[in-house]
Amino acid sequence: MPSDTLPAAVAMPLRGRPHVVILGGGFGGLAAAKALRRAPVDVTLIDQRNHHLFQPLLYQVATAALNPSDIAVPIRQILRRQRNASVLLAEAVAVDPIGKRVLLSDGVNPEGAVPYDFLILATGVTHSYFGHPEWAGAAPGLKTIEDALEIRKRILLAFESAEWETDPARQRAWLTFILVGGGPTGVELAGAIAEIARHVMTRDFRRIDPAKARVLLIEAGPRILPGFAPELSQWATEAISRLGVEVFTGNPVTALDNGGVTVHGEKIEARTILWAAGVEGSPLASSLGAPLASGGRIPVQPDLSLTEAPGVFVIGDLASLHQDGQPLPALAPVAVQEGRHAARNILRALQGLPGLPFTYHSRGMLATIGRAAAVGEVARLRFTGFAAWLFWLLVHIAWLIGFRNRFLVLTEWAWTYLRYERGARLITGPKQGGLPDRPSGTKG
Amino acid sequence: MPSDTLPAAVAMPLRGRPHVVILGGGFGGLAAAKALRRAPVDVTLIDQRNHHLFQPLLYQVATAALNPSDIAVPIRQILRRQRNASVLLAEAVAVDPIGKRVLLSDGVNPEGAVPYDFLILATGVTHSYFGHPEWAGAAPGLKTIEDALEIRKRILLAFESAEWETDPARQRAWLTFILVGGGPTGVELAGAIAEIARHVMTRDFRRIDPAKARVLLIEAGPRILPGFAPELSQWATEAISRLGVEVFTGNPVTALDNGGVTVHGEKIEARTILWAAGVEGSPLASSLGAPLASGGRIPVQPDLSLTEAPGVFVIGDLASLHQDGQPLPALAPVAVQEGRHAARNILRALQGLPGLPFTYHSRGMLATIGRAAAVGEVARLRFTGFAAWLFWLLVHIAWLIGFRNRFLVLTEWAWTYLRYERGARLITGPKQGGLPDRPSGTKG
Repeated sequence: MPSDTLPAAVAMPLRGRPHVVILGGGFGGLAAAKALRRAPVDVTLIDQRNHHLFQPLLYQVATAALNPSDIAVPIRQILRRQRNASVLLAEAVAVDPIGKRVLLSDGVNPEGAVPYDFLILATGVTHSYFGHPEWAGAAPGLKTIEDALEIRKRILLAFESAEWETDPARQRAWLTFILVGGGPTGVELAGAIAEIARHVMTRDFRRIDPAKARVLLIEAGPRILPGFAPELSQWATEAISRLGVEVFTGNPVTALDNGGVTVHGEKIEARTILWAAGVEGSPLASSLGAPLASGGRIPVQPDLSLTEAPGVFVIGDLASLHQDGQPLPALAPVAVQEGRHAARNILRALQGLPGLPFTYHSRGMLATIGRAAAVGEVARLRFTGFAAWLFWLLVHIAWLIGFRNRFLVLTEWAWTYLRYERGARLITGPKQGGLPDRPSGTKG
Repeated sequence: MPSDTLPAAVAMPLRGRPHVVILGGGFGGLAAAKALRRAPVDVTLIDQRNHHLFQPLLYQVATAALNPSDIAVPIRQILRRQRNASVLLAEAVAVDPIGKRVLLSDGVNPEGAVPYDFLILATGVTHSYFGHPEWAGAAPGLKTIEDALEIRKRILLAFESAEWETDPARQRAWLTFILVGGGPTGVELAGAIAEIARHVMTRDFRRIDPAKARVLLIEAGPRILPGFAPELSQWATEAISRLGVEVFTGNPVTALDNGGVTVHGEKIEARTILWAAGVEGSPLASSLGAPLASGGRIPVQPDLSLTEAPGVFVIGDLASLHQDGQPLPALAPVAVQEGRHAARNILRALQGLPGLPFTYHSRGMLATIGRAAAVGEVARLRFTGFAAWLFWLLVHIAWLIGFRNRFLVLTEWAWTYLRYERGARLITGPKQGGLPDRPSGTKG
């Protein structure tokens, strides 16, 4: 019914039924919302973006292989048939655990606050620059579609700039790409950039040889893909080196600006620096007044609830929970399972039953290295190479929400794979009617 | 060869051969570049964007049916195999006809100026607000991918805002969409928005009924699609009215702001206003010192050259040329034919031959009205309805550059057509980590 028949006070969907508010439309938040499909509650999912993002493939948007809409689906569309669910496009700035309200910044809702009976916090994590916020401008991270399009723009503009740069040193800097952080994202980005340079761009330029581009992957720890078994890290290092990526491990970045990075006392000149090194819990966490774990994550009870804030559950990357002495990894499957579990515990609470402890059933881990290689761990099974890549491809396509995306992504990938093409090789940006904005200091 | 072996002075591709500079990578500029494929000249195509845009389908990006990369292709990719052509991503700010140089603003080229022997000016037109530049912010026009994504964002955010707006009047304003200008773009946008409201959005919202959205098409002249025969305008008016679009003709917009427009003394409250009313020649035109025709276009000689600026040719929307007493329409086919003709006359000039006058061989005109209707004129033939739409579909798909696009566009369209889906229904924007920017004054 159109709300112009309703006074503002009851604009929120409170028809006497308990109101479950979910913050964040990622894997965890959506899983929780769907798990409440048939529950006698009203669900309001609040996200500051109108789309759910399939983050595991975001690096493919950043490297111009996929379009944003291939890996993003409007949250409304996903929950369209779930009658007890409403979607609110708004930015939550704080949680008031005493008044049981979520406070909105601007947001579409004029009220500015959303009351809840139960709250599922699933706002995830954001980039962390280890106490160097000033590095953010020079080295963007990859969390949102905007991030991906910004990174894409920088990569493509770097080649454009190199093509017309006449100073050899400056040209080399334009053709040097540095990935900070050797986790899956860093490895996947490095591999994709190396391939673009060697296979996609080669025929497009007249003055430069894009294949001469340097791609550096810098990991502070002893090995890349630290979450995987040592032999898989070893295999990945060799595979990505074959793609032309130079892997540096064992030393952190000590300085970073638009001109390059400093590692182990040596300054490496580079105009394109991407950040894949660290994340921290979304700022919302602090508003709960609960003590935070390392990386700004929220320590939760075994049932995913918070003792300090009754009715509040925390799931996904934002939650800090240990299992068998190990912290649970920041993976989509963990978030999904936690989301369903939180929903289950809310239903139990409604029946006056205590919450059940959460147990993660591992689905394994995968990471791709370039165009046709990957490493994977499923249970005790470890596999590498093309087989692993095919498995990765199938798993991710199967995961993608909505037939349309699955189908189109397949087409685009098939094309990319067959033709070494990059279909989405477009530089677009906020600045209207002129050159897209550049990372500062790019004038020749 | 990498230019680090060259001093800056010869960074421009001057190997003793005449240097043809083409400003603008649209239909005309690309046609000219391709026509010079085997000519004994060096071609430098300069554009401020890295992609050629298939503008006739831009409204489909604005209405979330297509992705930017479906209708845009990197110019480098198009000219990849043309060895005598270089592409420069830079913004040309002025032409120096005396010194025979093109002056660049920022741009990748450090020189800041590109010398030419022959210049083909194909920078097209931009929006014109008829002496009301202050209207631009409230009523964006549709020329670039950035425009299209901005319009898409405003349309989608309008429904989001209406869903949570509790004041009936404000909610109605959010659900009112005004198209200013009854040309093909205005008609196509109006039809597409009406369809989104009635078929795509309906199931997504809980409080509003998107089908209740008002879509107004305001044309100052006596009829919409003035470029077409009167009976086609009549047919189009009826067809678009059946889609739910309210057509107002005969009165210009006299006032316009974020709150709505004033027509014939009446203020119509609307939060989404789109501009399709007028265009004017790109500002570059004035730098030539030649007298400009109406709409800032450049009057050209019958051979497309300029008496005031030797070696300079003007083609496409920017050129003002009459044929049989009628000004040539601003259509892609005109630009393409002019581009090829300018190339031919350049080759003749190199052989000391005079330029030949240009004659446009009409390919007809087409305009779509919503999902499955169109009007068309080919020679004396006039057709309407589904047949015209199918013809429009085929023509445009055939026109799209590159198999990949053609194929993907087909898939997306087939999907849209079968499912009334809008695959690219994403709100993205410059603002990072928060709500996308809104048209100003949208707070509840």
